[in-house]
Amino acid sequence: MTSGNHISELMDRVLARTAHARAFQRFLPAGQLVYGMDEEESEGVIVVRSGRLRCFSSFEGKELTLFMLDAGEAVLFHDASMFEVKWDCELVVIGMSALRRICQTDPELSLALLPAVDRLLQRSIRMIEDMAFHGVKHRLIRALCDTAEREGRFEGRSIVLDRPPNAEDFAMQIGATRQTVSTVMAELVRSGILHRFGGSSMVISDMPRLRQELSGVR
Amino acid sequence: MTSGNHISELMDRVLARTAHARAFQRFLPAGQLVYGMDEEESEGVIVVRSGRLRCFSSFEGKELTLFMLDAGEAVLFHDASMFEVKWDCELVVIGMSALRRICQTDPELSLALLPAVDRLLQRSIRMIEDMAFHGVKHRLIRALCDTAEREGRFEGRSIVLDRPPNAEDFAMQIGATRQTVSTVMAELVRSGILHRFGGSSMVISDMPRLRQELSGVR
Repeated sequence: MTSGNHISELMDRVLARTAHARAFQRFLPAGQLVYGMDEEESEGVIVVRSGRLRCFSSFEGKELTLFMLDAGEAVLFHDASMFEVKWDCELVVIGMSALRRICQTDPELSLALLPAVDRLLQRSIRMIEDMAFHGVKHRLIRALCDTAEREGRFEGRSIVLDRPPNAEDFAMQIGATRQTVSTVMAELVRSGILHRFGGSSMVISDMPRLRQELSGVR
Repeated sequence: MTSGNHISELMDRVLARTAHARAFQRFLPAGQLVYGMDEEESEGVIVVRSGRLRCFSSFEGKELTLFMLDAGEAVLFHDASMFEVKWDCELVVIGMSALRRICQTDPELSLALLPAVDRLLQRSIRMIEDMAFHGVKHRLIRALCDTAEREGRFEGRSIVLDRPPNAEDFAMQIGATRQTVSTVMAELVRSGILHRFGGSSMVISDMPRLRQELSGVR
């Protein structure tokens, strides 16, 4: 329908028309946890203009990553929404009543937000399917492939991840324990598909074989 | 933001303005499977005006219910979307390009669709949390409580479900096998919380105890 970057462009228009008010920018440093984005309203929209925001759930001390929001992506926040700033973020936050007003005069905004929210729904449906139909190994390999596609850079025939997720990150992403993730990772390293360099970067030396593993594992 | 029924009212307006065209009504009988709602466009929106539509996924013969859509609810459909008509349905289907055009002149529509799609996202997040944090027994009891709240009618202190989901339905809803569901159901029947009458109706005789079970089970 519309590309993600379209939303970020729309934000310029929204912020420029200060008559709308209550659409404000926020710059947040990596590591910051955010519960409740807007002091006055418990619901609204967050647009990520740069950086990366992690949306997560937790239960009895266990955390589960629901999705990573990159530049141009948007999410509706609620009372119980929890976010962690993964990479320094520039956000635009609009409370729900302001959003309604802005969209009445600028229908493009809700037309851009609709597919953005639907993309998160599609991602969460894929996560549900993965959890219902596949085991941990399959889910981990898929998460690795996704990360490589999104963030990897080619170096010869290898794919290098400069800021790779660690075992804990992957565990929270696929809903498994850190131990299980480490075991599967060690397996992939032993079979020569994956290399790690001191925890700082990760090299997938054989992407075709990694993908092949995916089809061979339930 | 807006109630579900608001969407159904908006549909009257949309259908009346036939100048918009390409927003059409469909009446589908229970049992019908629907793949691809619109012959010309692979993406768009489905609004349920009456009845119940099941949105599901499948993998190697196993089915997983993603959500049930009741009157006043809406979902964006895609190439791969699969639906089953559970109860006779009256739907309005609008292809994506028509939706864009309608929303430009009628911002209320996208403003109503945004929270509708977000509600499905919240439901799927709850499903992800349930699968990551809870076992089958917990998920089944929660599904039972949800069904009782949504569809049950009081008869004295009992709650009667006249069209209860069967073991297969519950299994597809919580991502478990039919056997496991039957085992847990039998357990609930043995402990006097639940009764079945010939598969046609189900009685929850002790709702407080059912809820109590929920907090006692991981």
